[in-house]
Amino acid sequence: MPKTIKKVGVLTSGGDSPGMNAAIRSVVRTCAYHNIECIGIYRGYQGMIEGDFKEMGPRSVNNIVNKGGTILKSARSVEFRTPEGRKKAHDNLVKAGVDALVVIGGDGSFTGGLIFNSEFDFPVMGIPGTIDNDIYGTSFTLGYDTALNTVVDCIDKIRDTASSHNRLFFVEVMGRDAGHIALNAGIGAGAEEILIPEEDLGLDRLLDSLQKSKASGKSSSIVVIAEGDKIGKNVFELKDYVEANLPEYDVRVSVLGHMQRGGSPSCFDRVLASRLGVKAVESLIEGKSNYMVGLREDKVILTPLEQAIKGKSEIDRELLRVSDIMST
Amino acid sequence: MPKTIKKVGVLTSGGDSPGMNAAIRSVVRTCAYHNIECIGIYRGYQGMIEGDFKEMGPRSVNNIVNKGGTILKSARSVEFRTPEGRKKAHDNLVKAGVDALVVIGGDGSFTGGLIFNSEFDFPVMGIPGTIDNDIYGTSFTLGYDTALNTVVDCIDKIRDTASSHNRLFFVEVMGRDAGHIALNAGIGAGAEEILIPEEDLGLDRLLDSLQKSKASGKSSSIVVIAEGDKIGKNVFELKDYVEANLPEYDVRVSVLGHMQRGGSPSCFDRVLASRLGVKAVESLIEGKSNYMVGLREDKVILTPLEQAIKGKSEIDRELLRVSDIMST
Amino acid sequence: MPKTIKKVGVLTSGGDSPGMNAAIRSVVRTCAYHNIECIGIYRGYQGMIEGDFKEMGPRSVNNIVNKGGTILKSARSVEFRTPEGRKKAHDNLVKAGVDALVVIGGDGSFTGGLIFNSEFDFPVMGIPGTIDNDIYGTSFTLGYDTALNTVVDCIDKIRDTASSHNRLFFVEVMGRDAGHIALNAGIGAGAEEILIPEEDLGLDRLLDSLQKSKASGKSSSIVVIAEGDKIGKNVFELKDYVEANLPEYDVRVSVLGHMQRGGSPSCFDRVLASRLGVKAVESLIEGKSNYMVGLREDKVILTPLEQAIKGKSEIDRELLRVSDIMST
Amino acid sequence: MPKTIKKVGVLTSGGDSPGMNAAIRSVVRTCAYHNIECIGIYRGYQGMIEGDFKEMGPRSVNNIVNKGGTILKSARSVEFRTPEGRKKAHDNLVKAGVDALVVIGGDGSFTGGLIFNSEFDFPVMGIPGTIDNDIYGTSFTLGYDTALNTVVDCIDKIRDTASSHNRLFFVEVMGRDAGHIALNAGIGAGAEEILIPEEDLGLDRLLDSLQKSKASGKSSSIVVIAEGDKIGKNVFELKDYVEANLPEYDVRVSVLGHMQRGGSPSCFDRVLASRLGVKAVESLIEGKSNYMVGLREDKVILTPLEQAIKGKSEIDRELLRVSDIMST
Repeated sequence: MPKTIKKVGVLTSGGDSPGMNAAIRSVVRTCAYHNIECIGIYRGYQGMIEGDFKEMGPRSVNNIVNKGGTILKSARSVEFRTPEGRKKAHDNLVKAGVDALVVIGGDGSFTGGLIFNSEFDFPVMGIPGTIDNDIYGTSFTLGYDTALNTVVDCIDKIRDTASSHNRLFFVEVMGRDAGHIALNAGIGAGAEEILIPEEDLGLDRLLDSLQKSKASGKSSSIVVIAEGDKIGKNVFELKDYVEANLPEYDVRVSVLGHMQRGGSPSCFDRVLASRLGVKAVESLIEGKSNYMVGLREDKVILTPLEQAIKGKSEIDRELLRVSDIMST
Repeated sequence: MPKTIKKVGVLTSGGDSPGMNAAIRSVVRTCAYHNIECIGIYRGYQGMIEGDFKEMGPRSVNNIVNKGGTILKSARSVEFRTPEGRKKAHDNLVKAGVDALVVIGGDGSFTGGLIFNSEFDFPVMGIPGTIDNDIYGTSFTLGYDTALNTVVDCIDKIRDTASSHNRLFFVEVMGRDAGHIALNAGIGAGAEEILIPEEDLGLDRLLDSLQKSKASGKSSSIVVIAEGDKIGKNVFELKDYVEANLPEYDVRVSVLGHMQRGGSPSCFDRVLASRLGVKAVESLIEGKSNYMVGLREDKVILTPLEQAIKGKSEIDRELLRVSDIMST
Repeated sequence: MPKTIKKVGVLTSGGDSPGMNAAIRSVVRTCAYHNIECIGIYRGYQGMIEGDFKEMGPRSVNNIVNKGGTILKSARSVEFRTPEGRKKAHDNLVKAGVDALVVIGGDGSFTGGLIFNSEFDFPVMGIPGTIDNDIYGTSFTLGYDTALNTVVDCIDKIRDTASSHNRLFFVEVMGRDAGHIALNAGIGAGAEEILIPEEDLGLDRLLDSLQKSKASGKSSSIVVIAEGDKIGKNVFELKDYVEANLPEYDVRVSVLGHMQRGGSPSCFDRVLASRLGVKAVESLIEGKSNYMVGLREDKVILTPLEQAIKGKSEIDRELLRVSDIMST
Repeated sequence: MPKTIKKVGVLTSGGDSPGMNAAIRSVVRTCAYHNIECIGIYRGYQGMIEGDFKEMGPRSVNNIVNKGGTILKSARSVEFRTPEGRKKAHDNLVKAGVDALVVIGGDGSFTGGLIFNSEFDFPVMGIPGTIDNDIYGTSFTLGYDTALNTVVDCIDKIRDTASSHNRLFFVEVMGRDAGHIALNAGIGAGAEEILIPEEDLGLDRLLDSLQKSKASGKSSSIVVIAEGDKIGKNVFELKDYVEANLPEYDVRVSVLGHMQRGGSPSCFDRVLASRLGVKAVESLIEGKSNYMVGLREDKVILTPLEQAIKGKSEIDRELLRVSDIMST
C-alpha cells in the first residue's frame, strides 16, 4: 500500500517555457482540491538544497495562468550533481514535511529526479516543460505550441519586409538537437526550405531549391534553420555560401533567440498544463512514482521517467514531405 | 481502377474559419506538385451553380497561409438544395473539366457534397473547417485552435478590468451545439465556471459556485458561457438572475461575437491545414471519394463523410473535472 | 515657500485603463529617486476612507509596466461624496504621514481631488487615465492608444469574416460622450462609416453611404458606432432599420465591450505613463497643486484641474473629412 | 497659377515600414475623391525608370490598410543617381500622363525627389515612411509607432525568461544613427539602461549602473542598445566586456533584426498614414511642391523637403532623464 501523500513540493528546472506557471497553478490547486499541502521550491534543485521554500495555497497562484516564465524561477545546480548536495536537499524536504515531488522541466531535470528517487526512495513525477518538444512520451511539451506561434508571428513580420524588397531571409530558430520548432513553424510560416538536425539536406539541394524557387516566380524566400542543423555551417556562414553561389540573391539573417522562450502561453499550452498538473498530483496520490505525464494520441498518459529520458522524440517525417509540397 | 484525376475544384462553404486559406493553398499546391490542374470555386456551392471559377496555380496562393477568412469566399446556397441547382453545378464542373471536388467546411457542406456525389458519382473529399470543433472524425477542426487563442486573449483583457474592479463577468463565446470552445478556452482563461450545451450545470450549482469563489478570497470571477448552454437563459437573463440572488456581485456581460471567426491562423491551424490539404488531394488521386480528412490520435486519417456527418464530436468530460479542480 | 513633501500617496480611480500600472510605477520610482516615501492607496477614494494603504518602494512595482488593469484596484466611493467620508480620508492620510496625493483617473476622480484639496488644502496632482481620451488638457489619455489598437485588432478579425461572406457589420465601441475611439479606430480599421456622439450624421446619410459603398464595388462593409452616437438608436435597432431599408444587406452586430479597457499597454502608453508620473511627482515637490499633467503638442504640460474638468476634449473634425475620403 | 494636376504617381522607396500600404491607399483614394487619376509605381525609382506602372483606383487598395510591407515594393536604384536614369524616368512619367509624384520613404528618397524636381520642374511631395523616426519636420514617421510596439512585445517575452533565470540581456534594436526606437522602447520595456548613438554613456557608467541595479535587489536586467550606439563596441563585444568585469552577471544577447520593419501597423500609424496621404495629394492639387507632410504638435504640417533632408530629428533629452528615474 502506498504511503499517504500529505505535502507535495513543486519546482521548475532547466530552460523555462510558457505554460510552466499554468502547470505550477495546476499542481497547487489539485493539491488543495485533494486537501494536500503544497510548497513551491524556488530555483529548481538549487533551491531544494538551500531550503528556499514557500507554502502555496490556491490563492498563491491567482492570475498566473497567462504569464510566461516561472514564478518559482529556474536555475542550474552543480551541487545537486553531488551526493552531498542531494543529501542536503533531501534533508530539507524531510524537515519541511514534503513527501513527494513534481518536477517541471526537461530531460536533465528528470534525470536529477530519477537519481534523487533512487537514493532516497522519494516519489517523483515529471511534467515535460520545454519549448523544444524533444521529450519522448508526449506529443507536446509545455511551451512548444506557444513557441511555434511566436516564431510564426516573427516570420510573418519578416515576410512583409522580405517581399517588399524581394529578399531571401535565413531565420534561425531554437532547436539544438531537435527540429520540431523549425519544421512546424517553417511549414506554418510558408518557408521555402527548412534545415533541421535530423536530416542532412545538403548544400547542393539547398542551392537547387533556392534556384527553383526563383525560377517559379517567387519574389522572396524564407529559409528556416534550426540552431543545430546538420548542414554544418552556422547561419552567417550559410549566408556567405549562398551569396557566393547564387549572386542573384540578397540574403539577410535573423536569429530569433530567447524571445522564443517567453510570452503568454497559448490556450493549448494552458489547457495542457492544467491537465498534466492534475494527472501528476493524482498519480502521486495513487502511489505512483518515477513517471512523466504527457499527452499522446489525444490522451493524458504516463511514461516511465527512464524511458522519457532515454527515448527520442522523433520528428514526423511526413512533415518533411508536406513542407516540400507546400513550397511548390 | 479509379479514373485519373486531371483537375480538382476546391471551395469553402459555411461559416468561415482561420486556416481555410492555408487549406486552399495546400490543395492548390498539392495539385501542382502532382501535375494536376486546380480551379477555385467562389462562394461555395452557389459559385458552382453560377460557374464562378478561377484557374489556380501555385503562385495564386502566395502569401495567404497567414490570412484569416477565405479568398474563395463563402455563401449559403438555397439553390444547391434543389436537384436543378445541383444539375447546373455539375454541368459547370463538367464543362470546366473538373473531375473531383475538395469541400472545406462543416457538416452542412459535407451533406451537400455527399448528395452531389450520390447523384453524379462525382469524387468528393471533405476538409473540416469550422471554429466549433464539432465534427466527428477529427480531434481538431481548422480554425478551432485559433479561435481558442482569440477567446483566451479577449478574456485575459477582460480579467484585467475585472480584477481592478472586483467584478464578475459573464463572457459568451461561440458554440450553439458544442461546448468545445467554452470548455477549453474557459480552462485556458482560468474561468471560475463554464456553461456548455452538453451539460446542465443547473442554476443552483452556479450560484453555489460563485458564492464559494467569493468565500475563497477571489476578488473577481469569469464565467464562460457557450451560446447554446443548457441552462436555458440567455447571458443577459443570467446576469439579472445572479444579481437578484447574489447582490454582492456586480455583473458585467461581454458577448465576444464574430471576431472569433477571424484573425491570422495559429501555427497549429496552418500546419493542420497543410497536412489535410495534401491528404485530401492525394486521396482523390488514389481514387478515394466520400471521405473527410482529419487529425486523430496524432495521425492524419480518413473518415467516411457519412460518419463525419452523423457522428458527434463529444467533449472530453475529463476536462469538466479539470475545470472544477482549477477553480479551487 | 511650499512645504516640503515627504510622503506621496497614489491612487487609481474610476474606470481602469491600460497604462495605469505604468503610471503607478513611475510615481513610486520618481518618489524613490527624490528620496520621498510613497504609499499606495487601494480602491481609490474608498481605500483612502478605509485606510487601505501600503508602503511602496521601487521594488514593489517590478514587472508591472506591461500589465493591464491597476494593482491598486479601483472603486466608486459614495462615502467620499460626503464631508464625513472626506474627513475620514484626510485623517487617515495625516495619520500615515502622507502630505500630497497623485490621482490617476478621469473627470470624476479629479473633481473628488479638487474638493478634497479645497477642504483640507491638501496638494493634489492628477494624471489622466481613461481609454476615452475625453479629458481637456491632454492630447492623449493613458490607455487610449492601447484601446485603439485593441479595437482595430478586433475589427481586422471581423473584417476577415465580413469579406468572406460579403456582409455588413455594425461594431459598437466605447465612448458614451466622446467619439475619439470610434473616429480614430474607425479610420484605422478602414470603416466605411463612423457614428459618434459629436455629430449627427443622420439616418438618411447612413443609408445613402451604404448604398454608395455597395455600388462602388465593395463586397463588405464595417460601420463603427460609439456607444453614445447621436443617431438615437442603439446598435441593434440600427441593424433592424438598415435591414428594413436596404434588404440587400445582411447585417451583423458586434459589441466589443469591456475588453477595450484591458490588455498590456502599448509602448506609447507606457512611455506616456512614465513621463506623466515623473512630472506629477516633481510638480508636487516644486510646491504645485491642483494641476493635471498631460501631453499636448508633443510636450508634457500642466493644466489646472478645474480647466481639465470643465473643458471639453474636442474631436479633430478634420478626421471626419479624412474618414470620408478614405471610404471612397 | 499652378497647373492642374490630372494624374498622380505614387511610389515607396528605401527600407519599408508598417503604414506604407495605408499611405498608398490614402493617396489613391484621395485622388479618386478629387477625380484625379492615380498610378502606382513599382520598386521605387527603379520602377519609374523601367516604366513599371499600374493604374490604381479606389478598389485597388481594398484590404491593405492593415498590411505590413508595401504592395508597390521598394528597391534601391543606382541608375536613378545618374542624369540618364532620371531622364528615362521622366520620359516614362510624361508618357503615362503623370504630372505629380508622391514619394513615401526616408531622407535618401526625398533627396532623389528633390533632384528630380530641380531637373524637370516636376511636382513632388514626400511622406515620411521609416521605422527610425529620424526625419526632421515630423514627430512621428510612418511605422515608428508599430516598431516600438513590436520591440516592446519582444522584450516583454525576453523579460519572462530573463527573470526566470535572473539573467542580464543585451537587446539590440534598429537605429544606426538615431536612438528614438531604443530610447522609447527601452522606457516602454522597463530597460535598466539604454545605449543610443546620440549619447556616449561610457563603459564605466554602464558597469556602475548594472552593479547598482543588482544591489538594489533587481534579479534580472535588460539593456537596450541601438545598432549605432556611441559606446564603440558591438553588442557581442559588450557582452564579453561586461562578463569580464562583472562576473556575477550571466549575459545573453538578442538582436531583434528585420522583424522590426514588418507587421500589421498600429492604429496610430494607420491614422497617420491616412492623414498624411490626404494632405500630400491635396497640397499637390493646391500647386505646392517640394514639401514633406508630417505631424508636429498634433497638427499635419508641411516642411520644405530641403529642410526635412538637412535637419536633424533630435531625441527628446528629457526622456534620458525619465529612463534614469524609471530604472531606480
